[in-house]
This record gives sequence, structure tokens and C-alpha cells, in this order.
Amino acid sequence: MGIPNDIRGSFSRQAFMRTIGASLELVEPGRVHISIPFSPALSQQHGFMHAGVIASIADSASGYAALTLAPANSDVLSVEFKICLLAPAVGSRFVARAHILRAGHRLSFCTAEVSAIDGEQESIIATMLSTMTTKTA
Amino acid sequence: MGIPNDIRGSFSRQAFMRTIGASLELVEPGRVHISIPFSPALSQQHGFMHAGVIASIADSASGYAALTLAPANSDVLSVEFKICLLAPAVGSRFVARAHILRAGHRLSFCTAEVSAIDGEQESIIATMLSTMTTKTA
Amino acid sequence: MGIPNDIRGSFSRQAFMRTIGASLELVEPGRVHISIPFSPALSQQHGFMHAGVIASIADSASGYAALTLAPANSDVLSVEFKICLLAPAVGSRFVARAHILRAGHRLSFCTAEVSAIDGEQESIIATMLSTMTTKTA
Amino acid sequence: MGIPNDIRGSFSRQAFMRTIGASLELVEPGRVHISIPFSPALSQQHGFMHAGVIASIADSASGYAALTLAPANSDVLSVEFKICLLAPAVGSRFVARAHILRAGHRLSFCTAEVSAIDGEQESIIATMLSTMTTKTA
Repeated sequence: MGIPNDIRGSFSRQAFMRTIGASLELVEPGRVHISIPFSPALSQQHGFMHAGVIASIADSASGYAALTLAPANSDVLSVEFKICLLAPAVGSRFVARAHILRAGHRLSFCTAEVSAIDGEQESIIATMLSTMTTKTA
Repeated sequence: MGIPNDIRGSFSRQAFMRTIGASLELVEPGRVHISIPFSPALSQQHGFMHAGVIASIADSASGYAALTLAPANSDVLSVEFKICLLAPAVGSRFVARAHILRAGHRLSFCTAEVSAIDGEQESIIATMLSTMTTKTA
Repeated sequence: MGIPNDIRGSFSRQAFMRTIGASLELVEPGRVHISIPFSPALSQQHGFMHAGVIASIADSASGYAALTLAPANSDVLSVEFKICLLAPAVGSRFVARAHILRAGHRLSFCTAEVSAIDGEQESIIATMLSTMTTKTA
Repeated sequence: MGIPNDIRGSFSRQAFMRTIGASLELVEPGRVHISIPFSPALSQQHGFMHAGVIASIADSASGYAALTLAPANSDVLSVEFKICLLAPAVGSRFVARAHILRAGHRLSFCTAEVSAIDGEQESIIATMLSTMTTKTA
């Protein structure tokens, strides 16, 4: 099964992902991973990664997960998302792993988990549920 | 009524807010506004502001709104938030306006609206509900 | 401005609303209120109204608020909702007041507040954000 | 590992669960299942189960999942929940399966899936993320 849309091309046009140093780790049908190294420039008042950064990579991963299953020449926009911040974002690297719960013509439901990685250790720090809308040109 | 915590000091330590160019516009008991100018470096694939940036300023405004009502020497962390993206983030400037729905000993509920501003025009592009937890040293 | 869909007819077919004793209090373009008296049969383990009942009337009010603005012969389904339970549902009567934040062709965003009423006292106990989808026959 | 709180006793005091015909299917540390047969008395305007009923059993299952991990003599209240309604609630029976993502002193994060069952067929129709607070007497 191929992926009809150019996920890597679209990701490279998300200037914000480049600004924060995020990279696309995995693109499979219904599944996208985005990772980001810790940077002091992205921290909140205690020096941990800001929740907004964690939400941002989870949102982008979720949107692109939806786009992997959309018809060719589609585009995707976030309708809404909800994120639970299970633990402070402490780590040297973070990975958001999104997969599609249900792909529809117009609406797709996604879930994503974000893990903090520190050496060999990995723990889940956030979980997201989101609704994406796809539009086909 | 005074505000027992140093909101501006904490905000200045949120490096991520500085990185994206956000500034604290208003701090009142139970109410905080944060604004950000549009920047191409913060855009998504169509050149609009990335939803993650919009969520980030709404989250920070909500957290600081909770902190205005917390006892002295408190700190605040986001437990979870949900954001509805009512319209694409098109504008030259964006303002997140948060206020507290209910402030509790440990948990506070906030709501925030984000408006896009273009010249004289202002329209609401996102709305957030969030839960914040406050810890007192 | 008229309301193109038969909100009262649809509400009367929601058997669950009848089962829990809910009634339609107000129907205006973009705005619907549903109320329910307290009943011990609808309580949780402390004798307060179950959060699920509070969510149910807020969800129905939100869906019908969306339907007031949809084209004739439309129907509405909940895509997702999020509810903050600000306080225990203690009172003799509860009113969910929903209004539309943005009505679109396919998707509408709603907000609803639920108040507990006890004699002259009224206080907000819950707030909901939701996404509704409308389908036109 | 035992469960320090009387989940079945508390469930039997949730009159609303009895009113809608829900029953406790499984209670394990960190994991609770609640099921409900379809009833026309619980339907929405098309004769499917009302989203509020689906949310109600998912909310109760999530709260009790949190209570299985709380200290003895604790009680649990829902802080907030978000539910995605992946598909209409069509089936002869529905099961909400909740498990704890992270159990904390005061706050626990849960997830729940609701499946519709029709003969041998089972499909996921809803997914919930929730925050629970536990209080110990």
C-alpha cells in the first residue's frame, strides 16, 4: 500500500517544525513519528520542554498520520485536539508517535503518544486525541 | 487585590515564549493576555501560523491566569488542555486571552480565546479549555 | 430569522432525554437550553447528579444549537466533546445552555455551560466544548 | 496485589448506572470494564444509543479504574473528560474498557475505549481521555 500524498514535502514546508528542530522519523500508512531534541530555547520556566512544543509535534504527527490515508492531492487541517500532560517533559529527546483511530472521507480521528528519552530510558509524558479534516483538491 | 506571584519574572524564564516572540500584554487577577506577531518561521505548510504556536500562547496565558490567583510562592503546571481551531490562523498578530473559570487549592480550570488581528479586523480563531495544577513551595 | 429544522420534533425522538426527564427550555438561532430536575435515579455514589447526565444534556443542547443554524432537512451528530466538571452537581435543577461558536457547512463548534440551581442560587458546575457534524438529506 | 477500595459497593450506589442497566464486568488493578445492553429508552433521534450514555459508562469505568489504584478509604471524582465518537453507537451491547495511564497522589489520567457488540462482531465506537481526582478520608 503506497501513500498517495507527499508527507515529507509538506513537512519540509512547515517552517515551525524546522524552527524547533523537529524531524520526521517514520511515515507509514496511518502512522507518523516526529522527534525533537531538547533545546533550552524551547523550555518553560523550569527548563523543561514547554508543553506547547510537545503539543506541536504531537499535532503535526497526527495531521500527517491522517494525510497518509487521504486520497491523492489532499491536504489536512487540525479541527481540535486534547492533550494530557502525564509528566513534566524532562529528557534529551522527545518522540511523538501518532496513529489513526478512524479515517473518514472528511474527518479522521487520531491518537498520539509523546515519549521522553534519556539515554536508554523512555517514558510516556503526554497523550493526545485529535480530529483532523482532510480536503482534496 | 494584588497578585502574589511574579508572573512577569516567570514568563521571562519561559525561553520558548521568547523564541517565538510572544509578549505578556495584560496581567490582572484571574486574567492574562499574551500576544505574538506573525512570523514565517512559525508557519505550517500553507504559510499560516502553526496550530502548535496558537496552542502554546493559549496554554501559557492560561497557566499564568491560574498563577495570578495562587498563593505566594506557587508554581503552575498544565495538566491537560483542549483546543478547538475555529479557523486558520491568518493574521499579522495573534492574542490569547485567558481567564479562570474556577480557582481551587490544587486545580484550576481556565478558558482562553485566541484572536487573529489584521489591521482593524479581529476574529476569534481558537478556543481552549484547560486544567492547571498549582504547587506551593 | 427562522429555524429551518424541527428541533422540538427531533428532541421528542431522543428517548434518552425523556428517560432522564430533560426538557427543551429555549430554542433560538444558534442557542439551545435544556433543563433537568434532580432525580435520585440519576445520581452517582454520593447522591449528586452523575457527570454523565450533566454531559448528556450539554451534548444534546450543543447538537441542537448546531441544528438551528443548519440548512433545512439536516441532521446533526456529535463528533467529539470535552467537559470540565468545575464543581459537584449539587442542586434541585440543572440547565445546560449551549451556543454556537462557529457554524460551518459540515462542522460546527459549540460551547455549553451547565448551571446548578437551588432556590434563588445558580452556579456554573460544568463547561463543554464540542464539535458537531451536520448532514443534509 | 489487592484493590484497597470497594469498587462494587460504590458502583452499586451509582443509581444512574442501575437506571440505565449498566453492569460492572471486570475490576482489576488499574482496569475496569462496564457494559450495557442496548435499550430504546436510551436512544437518540435515530434510535442509536445516545452519546451521553456512551460517555456515562466510559466516565464511570475510568473513575473506578482510578479508584482501584487509590489508597484505602479513597473516593474519586471526574475532573474532566474528552470523548471522540468514532462511529454511531449501533449494536446490541456496549462495553467501556478503561485503564489508567498514570496514577498520581491526587490526579490520575485514564483512557477508555467503548466497543459496540453485535453477535460476533465488535467494533470500537468511542475513545475517551479523562482526568480523575482522588480524595482519601
